Amino acid sequence: MSAPEKLAALREIMQTRGVDCVYVPSDDFHQSEYVGDYFKSRAYISGFTGSAGTLVIFADEAYLFTDGRYYLQAERQLEGSGIALMRSGSEGVPSVTELLRSKLKDGMTLAFDGRCVSASFAESLSRELHGVTFVTDVDFPGLIWNDRPPLPSGEIWALDIKYCGRSHAEKLAELREKLSGYDCGALVLSSLCDIAWLYNLRGSDVENTPVFMSYSIITAERDMLFANKNALSKVAEQLERDGVSLYDYDEFYPELKKLSGINVLLEKSAVSSSIVNSLKDCKITDAANPTKLMKAKKNPTELENLRLCHVADGLAVTRLMIELKFGEREFDELSCDEYLWQLRREAAEQVGVTLLGKSFDTIAAFGPNAAMMHYSAKPDSFARLDKAAPIPMLLVDSGGQYLEGTTDITRTFVLGKIPDEVKMHYTLTACGMLHLLNLIFMEGATGSSLDIVCREPLWERGIDYRCGTGHGVGYLLSVHEGPNRFHWRSGDAKLEEGMVTTDEPGVYIDGSHGIRIENELVAAKGLYNEYGQFLRFENLTFCPIDRDGIDTKYMDKSDIDKLNAYHKSVYDTLNQYLCENEREKLAYLTEKIS
Amino acid sequence: MSAPEKLAALREIMQTRGVDCVYVPSDDFHQSEYVGDYFKSRAYISGFTGSAGTLVIFADEAYLFTDGRYYLQAERQLEGSGIALMRSGSEGVPSVTELLRSKLKDGMTLAFDGRCVSASFAESLSRELHGVTFVTDVDFPGLIWNDRPPLPSGEIWALDIKYCGRSHAEKLAELREKLSGYDCGALVLSSLCDIAWLYNLRGSDVENTPVFMSYSIITAERDMLFANKNALSKVAEQLERDGVSLYDYDEFYPELKKLSGINVLLEKSAVSSSIVNSLKDCKITDAANPTKLMKAKKNPTELENLRLCHVADGLAVTRLMIELKFGEREFDELSCDEYLWQLRREAAEQVGVTLLGKSFDTIAAFGPNAAMMHYSAKPDSFARLDKAAPIPMLLVDSGGQYLEGTTDITRTFVLGKIPDEVKMHYTLTACGMLHLLNLIFMEGATGSSLDIVCREPLWERGIDYRCGTGHGVGYLLSVHEGPNRFHWRSGDAKLEEGMVTTDEPGVYIDGSHGIRIENELVAAKGLYNEYGQFLRFENLTFCPIDRDGIDTKYMDKSDIDKLNAYHKSVYDTLNQYLCENEREKLAYLTEKIS
Repeated sequence: MSAPEKLAALREIMQTRGVDCVYVPSDDFHQSEYVGDYFKSRAYISGFTGSAGTLVIFADEAYLFTDGRYYLQAERQLEGSGIALMRSGSEGVPSVTELLRSKLKDGMTLAFDGRCVSASFAESLSRELHGVTFVTDVDFPGLIWNDRPPLPSGEIWALDIKYCGRSHAEKLAELREKLSGYDCGALVLSSLCDIAWLYNLRGSDVENTPVFMSYSIITAERDMLFANKNALSKVAEQLERDGVSLYDYDEFYPELKKLSGINVLLEKSAVSSSIVNSLKDCKITDAANPTKLMKAKKNPTELENLRLCHVADGLAVTRLMIELKFGEREFDELSCDEYLWQLRREAAEQVGVTLLGKSFDTIAAFGPNAAMMHYSAKPDSFARLDKAAPIPMLLVDSGGQYLEGTTDITRTFVLGKIPDEVKMHYTLTACGMLHLLNLIFMEGATGSSLDIVCREPLWERGIDYRCGTGHGVGYLLSVHEGPNRFHWRSGDAKLEEGMVTTDEPGVYIDGSHGIRIENELVAAKGLYNEYGQFLRFENLTFCPIDRDGIDTKYMDKSDIDKLNAYHKSVYDTLNQYLCENEREKLAYLTEKIS
Repeated sequence: MSAPEKLAALREIMQTRGVDCVYVPSDDFHQSEYVGDYFKSRAYISGFTGSAGTLVIFADEAYLFTDGRYYLQAERQLEGSGIALMRSGSEGVPSVTELLRSKLKDGMTLAFDGRCVSASFAESLSRELHGVTFVTDVDFPGLIWNDRPPLPSGEIWALDIKYCGRSHAEKLAELREKLSGYDCGALVLSSLCDIAWLYNLRGSDVENTPVFMSYSIITAERDMLFANKNALSKVAEQLERDGVSLYDYDEFYPELKKLSGINVLLEKSAVSSSIVNSLKDCKITDAANPTKLMKAKKNPTELENLRLCHVADGLAVTRLMIELKFGEREFDELSCDEYLWQLRREAAEQVGVTLLGKSFDTIAAFGPNAAMMHYSAKPDSFARLDKAAPIPMLLVDSGGQYLEGTTDITRTFVLGKIPDEVKMHYTLTACGMLHLLNLIFMEGATGSSLDIVCREPLWERGIDYRCGTGHGVGYLLSVHEGPNRFHWRSGDAKLEEGMVTTDEPGVYIDGSHGIRIENELVAAKGLYNEYGQFLRFENLTFCPIDRDGIDTKYMDKSDIDKLNAYHKSVYDTLNQYLCENEREKLAYLTEKIS
């Protein structure tokens, strides 16, 4: 069926059931960032495949909301669909809620699948749309989706203590202590990453993120894990020995409804509206999952492992850089990605770490493609690398899932002559990244108070990047993890020892070029004195910053010192793994500038 | 009476009335930062005269809480009083509430004057002390204070439109619009600065802040001002012509109680507990006074005036600098302050602005005295300036109340040879101040996200200053005004066009030296492009930064450029007012460095 045919089919059902609007978000039952194919209803109906988007279908109109990362892609993919594109964040564009408020009169009916909408959003909708009737127990897209993929149920496996560093029992004990601090009798977890972390289990139900479909309920006495029983078969015995009560995934809601008359801790933005609606007899304490902060602060074992897999990552990207800049091969965006993954597998083996797969789909973007922050080359649409192009730069953003952790690294390579203005962009981006990496700050500082050190040189010249400066990174979990992030508008979590955050400023000029340089940083304790505790960052990412993009006329001496010191650390870290020829090239790439 | 005698007298009354504890804060009826003598009950009873302190009196014990600025002074002044000093902020020292919680058992009685305690604090007390009975309608200190000064009632005068820029009618219309936006039928104002601003009136009831004792109630129909009728005599006619209903100060509570059954907007942290208690029949919407933001965004007339009075200010401090560094006079901290005020009066006349008085008590602090952020020289305790002292630096922080606005400026002068480390402190402070002054940032940025540009060079070396980087400044009102401020921990108000904020990083080394360099900045619109609206700062303060404190080895080239550009602007602004000899000196003081 085409998009218009799908819309027509849906509208017929809407009419039969007396529904005026169907709201189709991008979420799964767990408010995950990435979702299994089963949950891609919005993409199925609209044809827009970006990771973020909300589809709103009325009797005569339909709207797709997406953000700046996806404007271009959505324009292309929605062509002929009859769905209007709403560019969220652009001037004059209403929010989804505002649109709903303007279209839905009192007495009209809005439908969404309550399992796919967070409790906090559903609550805000019901506040804003008083007078509107809600239908939340029907999965409308599912009614027309015949060849829908099944719910994922990949095998679940245990992550050895030498990788995760802390046993489930230890984590559980700390969690129960926190629970009693909240005066709560139960904790409900629906976030797949939190559950995988808590039980030291991993799965394969979401592409690039080794989690598995699950829920968990923790009380002072019980430790209940809900997941596909078949998928659990290899780990069930050990879990039961550890005191975990195992339930099938489908048993979650019935068991949840048995919680009654107690105070339940949950995070309304991280659980579905259906979960909160199932707890009608309970008092609810809405607070961040205590697991979130525990998981974000990597333990010493995790950090030791992370350092190692980042060496493999840096080695692979450095070798790609050497080949791109000095080699004879011809590349396009796709073959470049393939080659990088061959290098990553080899580097993992050489360093002695275990690479399981990608942590996200590689962005290998040449020339103007790099201006799209989340560009993805496709077999039917990709660019060839061309050193004679007007702005011959290649942005490569990639990351791996290793038993030793999750990685994320971006470098932008200069493959020929670039204009002076582009050098300015490149240099300012590099300086910003290095500035944040070298920052020393006091305990209590948030990501929003540090962000400006990256952004300032760009703001000074009237340039901004429409995203955060960096995000938290999981350990063999999602490459995007909270609560830590760098963002001047919304990075309000305090940075704490052990948190891993990316540092990735950039410049994106539509239709021309894109630059991003990304390292990962661990917050670590520094000096303690009469002023209190100072923190610093430990750098995890070792790969040269392309000197061909650098023009020292845009740098202060302290910037130059930082670049030279960083390059020395890159050489010192990687040279032992390189052959003579590569080592020479690395020496050149990391040569001191002045 | 001595302090022990006063305590004994109070305790007798407490026993008669069945009160177990009397809580005596430092506030007036308006939660003002500075208060009239009538309200200094805590100082009257305890003998401790610092600006911040809370006295708690039990049958057998009494405690005075104050913060780090006043530890030494309080120790001295409490000697022999029988009152224990509680050093707030020191490790292991409970908060006032924690102390009350530990001493007051269920069924016991706590008394405070509900007019002198903010509604928000009273609410938090009643939450924390459930089981305790509250008596809030008796002014216990007043019962024993025989020679109490009268309630202040200085003459109230009108601020001409050429100074305030907007008529009361215009402000009122905007305010009523905001009121309807909140769906509220009335606004209750108790903050003296907000009221003075709204009615374009000024008074003299609080030292250094030209406000007057007053309340205001605004509804859609009525515009009620409560103030001493005698004090109002010269402006009453005009106010009544403008539609303002005038009431005596004492009529406020009776009129307040007549509000019934409506939704009242007020700011619980800025009105007294008695006010909220008088509105039992009303729904209360607790939100920042809308006047706060309106007042903070200075209008074009105010800005034009401010520019002018800052020239007078800068001229005076520059002449002081010239005399201190090149003149023959001998100074001590007190005579330095006197001389500065003579210069300020002369400069005001020369520039053509009207100086009314100080905006706060001058801090003129030599050597180690400058390490105390709120040091104040006294006739019985002050230092002489001595160029041969180990660290011969003088910090001068002063400000004026002009018809053309309120000013605040700090310079630290180097009067002889200073150690290299002190030069480092001086240079980093100057660089931080100039860095913030030159910052370009996007609309939406808060003071907490910008603060780090000042603090970073210090943090890098393990140094911090235990205060904000800057505070908002009123217009012929309080020198400390919200909501704008620079503070990495708590500057969460967005910076908006027209807001005036100080920029005053510093280094304070106990027992050794203190450095502070303070300019005032106005947020102004900059570039508007595809990224949105950029803002920049306009500098208001023109006075050299002492080059004798600067060592370029701690500066980047961009720092040097900023200092040179700033010094050029100082010379260009001030030179027209100077005689030949002064001009030569200014040229030297603002000479380019490299």
